[in-house]
Amino acid sequence: MAGSEETVERAQPSADLVSSVVFDERGLVPCVVQDWASGEVLMLAYMNREALARTLTTGVVHFWSRSRERLWKKGETSGNVLQLRALRLDCDGDALLALVEPAGPVCHTGERSCFHRGDRSCAPHEALPNLARVIAERGARPTPGSYTAQLLADQRRARAKVLEESQEVGRAVADESDERVAEEAADVLYHLAVLMATRGVPLRAALEVLNARRR
Amino acid sequence: MAGSEETVERAQPSADLVSSVVFDERGLVPCVVQDWASGEVLMLAYMNREALARTLTTGVVHFWSRSRERLWKKGETSGNVLQLRALRLDCDGDALLALVEPAGPVCHTGERSCFHRGDRSCAPHEALPNLARVIAERGARPTPGSYTAQLLADQRRARAKVLEESQEVGRAVADESDERVAEEAADVLYHLAVLMATRGVPLRAALEVLNARRR
Repeated sequence: MAGSEETVERAQPSADLVSSVVFDERGLVPCVVQDWASGEVLMLAYMNREALARTLTTGVVHFWSRSRERLWKKGETSGNVLQLRALRLDCDGDALLALVEPAGPVCHTGERSCFHRGDRSCAPHEALPNLARVIAERGARPTPGSYTAQLLADQRRARAKVLEESQEVGRAVADESDERVAEEAADVLYHLAVLMATRGVPLRAALEVLNARRR
Repeated sequence: MAGSEETVERAQPSADLVSSVVFDERGLVPCVVQDWASGEVLMLAYMNREALARTLTTGVVHFWSRSRERLWKKGETSGNVLQLRALRLDCDGDALLALVEPAGPVCHTGERSCFHRGDRSCAPHEALPNLARVIAERGARPTPGSYTAQLLADQRRARAKVLEESQEVGRAVADESDERVAEEAADVLYHLAVLMATRGVPLRAALEVLNARRR
């Protein structure tokens, strides 16, 4: 029911898209690569016509390597290929956005994203992907005294906590400050993610349900 | 408490960052612009040394306009400036990522993002920003029979729904399929966002609390 009131956005067929791409004087177009699930910007590289065509026919992202002057299937050596989920083009046709599912870290340094230098303060949109990673890490390697690890090992308690925090956010909304509302809502989100993790269902699955309801 | 076990990621001072930028033969570096709150990729444009320096000193994003061959403060005409929240550099220094708070739509067409052509299927990371927009829209312009509008007008009912859905996700985790877990979790997320909206507190505020707990 939620969000089902939204109108459908139609996909442009990829043939149309290809003919709309404006390649520069080198025959290249920059392509921003973004993680389909988390929204993290992973890298920026360049495609020529062939790389773009290969990307669309194989469903795996290909670039033109300017340094090696050859077609480059991203991940061909590391195995960390980029599965294409959606390709978008900007208003004036001279930049692409590839939404991908990466098979592993994108950067040659082992970092998830190549954009790991500079100010890494967490943005709001990074909160839930980070939370999911912390929970997965605590599940895989429980540290002594970790509250998350304790909840992951006790589904009954995790259920009780989600319920308790839901009551608390309700009380906060009725009677308390905006700050308290945000804090209690954060508690709901955190405990909900942990509860789902006790079943091995990622938060992402709930986001996909929300998206499906928009259609 | 949640996520407080995570280690701190340190910011690189901006002077270091500037000296690490690799400008191309035209004296330019591409800069991906991403929405700080939603994670949406908004545009791609180019900076020269002056645009980068101006961006860092003013906190408002400046580019080098290749077509007009001049410094370009994004939003100088429309007023839709981009407030810089964080600037990151990629591993080999030849691409920037600016995380920004846009004052309004970034594209000259009035779209939020310039990347509005091609496949606009909703990615998981787009679910909550989209949900927030639908809720805001229903609040501003309630449509007859809209469930969201009804809940927004009845905080007591919204509170009861969050509690009810929390019980249901608990039951689903204990006894039902993965699909049911995801559906019930989506119901919690939706009703939580609506409940917060009855107080005018955005979901983003809860995400910021989660981020603050990581520090």
